[in-house]
Amino acid sequence: MASILLVILLSTDRWAQKDVNPALFSRELMRNSSSFLKDEEVNGDPQILLMKAHAATSSIGSATVIIAVLEKIGTLKIASVGDCGLKVIRKGQVMFSIPPQEHYFDCPYQISSEAAGQTYQDALVCSVNLMDGDMIVSGSDGLFDNIFDQEIISIISESSGVDEAAKALAELARKHSVDVTFDSPYAMEARSRGFDVPWWKKVLGAKLIGGKMDDITVVVAQVKTVAVPEDEGGDIEEQKGNEQSIAISVSSAEQNEE
Amino acid sequence: MASILLVILLSTDRWAQKDVNPALFSRELMRNSSSFLKDEEVNGDPQILLMKAHAATSSIGSATVIIAVLEKIGTLKIASVGDCGLKVIRKGQVMFSIPPQEHYFDCPYQISSEAAGQTYQDALVCSVNLMDGDMIVSGSDGLFDNIFDQEIISIISESSGVDEAAKALAELARKHSVDVTFDSPYAMEARSRGFDVPWWKKVLGAKLIGGKMDDITVVVAQVKTVAVPEDEGGDIEEQKGNEQSIAISVSSAEQNEE
Repeated sequence: MASILLVILLSTDRWAQKDVNPALFSRELMRNSSSFLKDEEVNGDPQILLMKAHAATSSIGSATVIIAVLEKIGTLKIASVGDCGLKVIRKGQVMFSIPPQEHYFDCPYQISSEAAGQTYQDALVCSVNLMDGDMIVSGSDGLFDNIFDQEIISIISESSGVDEAAKALAELARKHSVDVTFDSPYAMEARSRGFDVPWWKKVLGAKLIGGKMDDITVVVAQVKTVAVPEDEGGDIEEQKGNEQSIAISVSSAEQNEE
Repeated sequence: MASILLVILLSTDRWAQKDVNPALFSRELMRNSSSFLKDEEVNGDPQILLMKAHAATSSIGSATVIIAVLEKIGTLKIASVGDCGLKVIRKGQVMFSIPPQEHYFDCPYQISSEAAGQTYQDALVCSVNLMDGDMIVSGSDGLFDNIFDQEIISIISESSGVDEAAKALAELARKHSVDVTFDSPYAMEARSRGFDVPWWKKVLGAKLIGGKMDDITVVVAQVKTVAVPEDEGGDIEEQKGNEQSIAISVSSAEQNEE
């Protein structure tokens, strides 16, 4: 079974205080995910892939992670731990969306080198059937905390391709993240959880508002139906009699917190 | 394969203007869904079930629909057309959520007796792996337009069971729907789409606010892991060596728009 892998990882800065390079753990997890993708036991299951990739890490650190495996047959299988997000945009609307998982507000689930962290067993495991033309937008909390669904939809519809869309999304999220007057999804969520400005600011008419400074990672993928020549498709049993397959073009962009 | 079926249907009132009883179509669709559940071709696939149930209707009308099929193995398979919703609550947070599908704001996708309507091919098809203790909250747009995720989570955590939760959710949504001062999810969504009060109200400081009067249907289900005696589980091949299965207790409540 040929599969395509999308991985979003966000390393956790808190480790830097303990003289640990926070990027090492997530880089190792990503490398392991790629190498186990063709593993027979994994067999296209993103949760098993996460288990194996995590077990094979030796670095210290923690990370939030989404692993998404696309099978030729057109089903995107997802395992997610933490507050990265993934949305499927179809015909100008969000058709599918993964909410963030947190212990409490702003404290996400994490795959970790320590026993106290989460494992593959804590992952949200789900799948969605894709259609020709679907756009997949996946990213770190820094993206979805600073940009509304309607903005994502506008950018997707105005962009000429995945490269342009990924760059435009990262740029707009970055702009909002440093805008103290922008009523961001993050600020709205914080207020709905009962967070607020101090009372002495409140009496002056202030309210909790603004973007959220954070690293921003975006991956945009476009789904295209392609014809599969018979000799190539022959070894894929699930596709017997199915002459169409799914391909995606992927682009990513990053904006680091300065 | 033993399956459990959850169906949410909402008939469309617009047909009443044409002397059509808008409930007939949705009732027939629900009856058909139940009778095709054990169909061999359906084989636990909610999209095929929707196709067959829709094809077998003879009434005139249209409806938004969610069909969810739970297999013993613990995967909830979903096909959704329109603006009904389904959320999975795990450990005090929304772990999984289906966004509404609409042509434009307030005009949902619909399965219809007319050729212009949507079909099973327009359905969002997805699945989610359930865990012991998960609560499934599914309902019409009248529920999710009038109640926030945090309120759903609170009610679920405070209720002694699915009956109490379903009733409490329907009651709170009903209360909010007739409260013109409540800043509902519906009002917030409307404002984010650029809808607003007329300019002459705006200059007086008014803003678009209030609940949304609508029929409210709620289904709450609780997932429990149960032991399967060997002789019962023997015919389920996917479960070989797996001694656990999933059961759910379900309750529903309704509040009709007066």
